[in-house]
Amino acid sequence: MHASRYVSPLLCCVLLAPAMRVHAQAPPLPPAAVAAAEAIRASALSGTEAYELVRSLTVEVGPRLAGSQGDRAAVAWALTQLQDRSFANVRAQSVEVPHWERGVATVRIVEPYPQPLAAVALGGSVGTDDTGIEGAVVEVADLDELAALPPGAVRGRIVYFSKRMGRARDGAAYAATVPARTRGASEAARRGATAVLLRSVGTSASRVGHTGTTRYEPDVPPIPAFALPHADADLLEQQLAGGANVVVELHSTARMLPAARSANVIGDVPGTGEGIVVLGAHLDSWDLGTGAIDDGAGVAIVIAAANLIAKQSPRPARTVRVVLFANEEFGLSGAKAYAESLGDELAAHALGIEADFGAGRIWRMNAAVAEPALPAIDAIHAALAPLGVERGEAAARGGADLGPLRALGMPVIDLWHDGTAYFDHHHTADDTLDKIGPRDLDQPVAAYAVAAYLAASATVDFGRLPPPATP
Amino acid sequence: MHASRYVSPLLCCVLLAPAMRVHAQAPPLPPAAVAAAEAIRASALSGTEAYELVRSLTVEVGPRLAGSQGDRAAVAWALTQLQDRSFANVRAQSVEVPHWERGVATVRIVEPYPQPLAAVALGGSVGTDDTGIEGAVVEVADLDELAALPPGAVRGRIVYFSKRMGRARDGAAYAATVPARTRGASEAARRGATAVLLRSVGTSASRVGHTGTTRYEPDVPPIPAFALPHADADLLEQQLAGGANVVVELHSTARMLPAARSANVIGDVPGTGEGIVVLGAHLDSWDLGTGAIDDGAGVAIVIAAANLIAKQSPRPARTVRVVLFANEEFGLSGAKAYAESLGDELAAHALGIEADFGAGRIWRMNAAVAEPALPAIDAIHAALAPLGVERGEAAARGGADLGPLRALGMPVIDLWHDGTAYFDHHHTADDTLDKIGPRDLDQPVAAYAVAAYLAASATVDFGRLPPPATP
Repeated sequence: MHASRYVSPLLCCVLLAPAMRVHAQAPPLPPAAVAAAEAIRASALSGTEAYELVRSLTVEVGPRLAGSQGDRAAVAWALTQLQDRSFANVRAQSVEVPHWERGVATVRIVEPYPQPLAAVALGGSVGTDDTGIEGAVVEVADLDELAALPPGAVRGRIVYFSKRMGRARDGAAYAATVPARTRGASEAARRGATAVLLRSVGTSASRVGHTGTTRYEPDVPPIPAFALPHADADLLEQQLAGGANVVVELHSTARMLPAARSANVIGDVPGTGEGIVVLGAHLDSWDLGTGAIDDGAGVAIVIAAANLIAKQSPRPARTVRVVLFANEEFGLSGAKAYAESLGDELAAHALGIEADFGAGRIWRMNAAVAEPALPAIDAIHAALAPLGVERGEAAARGGADLGPLRALGMPVIDLWHDGTAYFDHHHTADDTLDKIGPRDLDQPVAAYAVAAYLAASATVDFGRLPPPATP
Repeated sequence: MHASRYVSPLLCCVLLAPAMRVHAQAPPLPPAAVAAAEAIRASALSGTEAYELVRSLTVEVGPRLAGSQGDRAAVAWALTQLQDRSFANVRAQSVEVPHWERGVATVRIVEPYPQPLAAVALGGSVGTDDTGIEGAVVEVADLDELAALPPGAVRGRIVYFSKRMGRARDGAAYAATVPARTRGASEAARRGATAVLLRSVGTSASRVGHTGTTRYEPDVPPIPAFALPHADADLLEQQLAGGANVVVELHSTARMLPAARSANVIGDVPGTGEGIVVLGAHLDSWDLGTGAIDDGAGVAIVIAAANLIAKQSPRPARTVRVVLFANEEFGLSGAKAYAESLGDELAAHALGIEADFGAGRIWRMNAAVAEPALPAIDAIHAALAPLGVERGEAAARGGADLGPLRALGMPVIDLWHDGTAYFDHHHTADDTLDKIGPRDLDQPVAAYAVAAYLAASATVDFGRLPPPATP
């Protein structure tokens, strides 16, 4: 999962609240489709192939950082999976992706009490030269505290961002903590700092660092940036306590390689009429784990959900299209390439649903659609309610990979996974298969399949959205 | 904590069960001592200095593998702590210790599905040469399964031990699982294997491997041995499923350096009469974490407990001696050196209590003493019962560091910490300060202080024990 889902404030609320119900004569969804959705739901709850899919992806491919050998293996894997399930128009859409290599990071406190610190380079971080970097550490909570320091306070020093992330079912604390990861290196460099350390943006109590991209502004030199596991952040803070002069030395062989090729992998469950409902997930992962929850789970869910739809009669009018995006983690180049390639087909994209928040149960549905389509959204929610899914009040935001399509006006439905434990594993070495139980994905598959099937079967036009407000 | 506490079957039961109670006229403990023990208990429960001690040790010293710079820093730290608390006869007893260096381990599956495996070298493991070792993997559950293979089955191959450790309050599953760690490398080498992989002997669900010593038999060549975190063990087993040929390559720069010097650190709370009650813990730790639960907690508990006793009136007849042993993890050389150094003073060692099972609450007390002393043990237990401590049926075994003294006849009391979560962190990178809550150690300090104070105050002779049976 990428940060952007959480960065935006509520969008498009005008479309939803207060929801004006249309009291039309015709039911908002064809009765046969509602009955078929109930059959899909029951089938999914009795067991799906999603766990086997994520097992296969994590065991037979594993880490698949954009541009890596694993990334290429993942594209081949995905093409095979879609072809084996008789998706139509199975294809790889070539995408240029950054190719970053983590290398080896060594971080040590050298004063006052020498100790090693476990640390992981942030994604995209530059490395150091062979002699490394040594400097005194300046602790700030976040970007605001950094900005409030007197001029020169961090010049020639290492900035440490200490803000802690909270735990929440909707993952909302991520947005409040992640800016120091994405922008901290450049903001520190702008003030003369030589490197950045960051308390991991996650909730793990284990000695695993939380990676994720750091973005370099073009007007300041790139400086190395590392995340510390919470135990190491605690240790650094203990040594800093009382204003002690703490000196850290760090060394990293991280580097950006020439851009590489990857691909979006796409397959259709053809409809009987016009229009497309997109089921999206991303195929790439971070390199530290095997990408089980981010986003192997999403890949497995959307393939399994679409395959359930393919087997269901009646076939929806709209095509259900699975798009397994390349390179979500390093700048969404797959999502952008897909959106830019559409041309006239863009208008056919009736609605999108993205799975990129792990393997937890779906507990909430939000939608962002034109007002005349709200009765259909209500009817879709009614089919999800037996799964324990509540109707959210806010407008859906769409996931990161659907962002470019949403910016072009495509309506979206968000299905919210329970994220209470998501950030225990997300972007860490602990994102592995054992974090998913064999039946965990069945309820999410039921929710995605029901929502996509009914959205594809609805006769209503979901409309077009205005561009989202800039946060 | 070392394996040996759990390796032995019940010992010395003859001394305890059926317990023949002595119906003497005199109370088994002086009433003033019982009242003083109640005051110690209340004081400890209202707050102790133990957390601050383990905080200081983990933050200001950190990892302290035998022979390392951290080990030397720990000795200096301990001398300062005992001197600052007005212990008497504070001294360092020089001890020769092995000096092993972990280096860097790289383990990868190369066939059928290439993936990196997180792995940690077992303590004392040899490394590889620069070209490393590559071989097909043979999975066995344990040493028995290895022994049952046909001749030649593992020749030129890498043996993988897959047995899982269970979770239990008393940690009993450790003994059932650890033999493959201690003896697996030599047993595999004896059959021609080139290296050993092992599912971590622990219960962590995180991507941290469980180290601990492996012992090489002199009659077979030493081969490298590694522990895999459970997620990596799962991955290896998934690739092995169905009998697939799985090839692993591994490389390690682990090596044994020349023996080094360390020290037992000893301090006394002098008694008014004859005899010594030992409170033991070990000062060394593994290198992966900061040795918070193993055995920073024990060090903190025994220092804090003895210091409470020092402040209590009446002073016990026997001396309460804190012994912070060097090098528990790599062969108990500190414990052996202490026992061997005693000479005539051995007879004065009336009883020992060791703290080396983490920071959990004390829930059980076992003792191994001569039968005439059982009423005094009952009375000690009565003073512990308000802490929620039950009386165990089995004879105490003593901890690893008290083993040499116990073998020479010294009676022991075991205070059992709740070990349900102990093996989530033990011997891993997750053995860090955040696993101990600021008040967690108060109840254990109360228990150790009460038991040691009353044992030192008891007028009874705890007797001498026969040598323990060989397991």
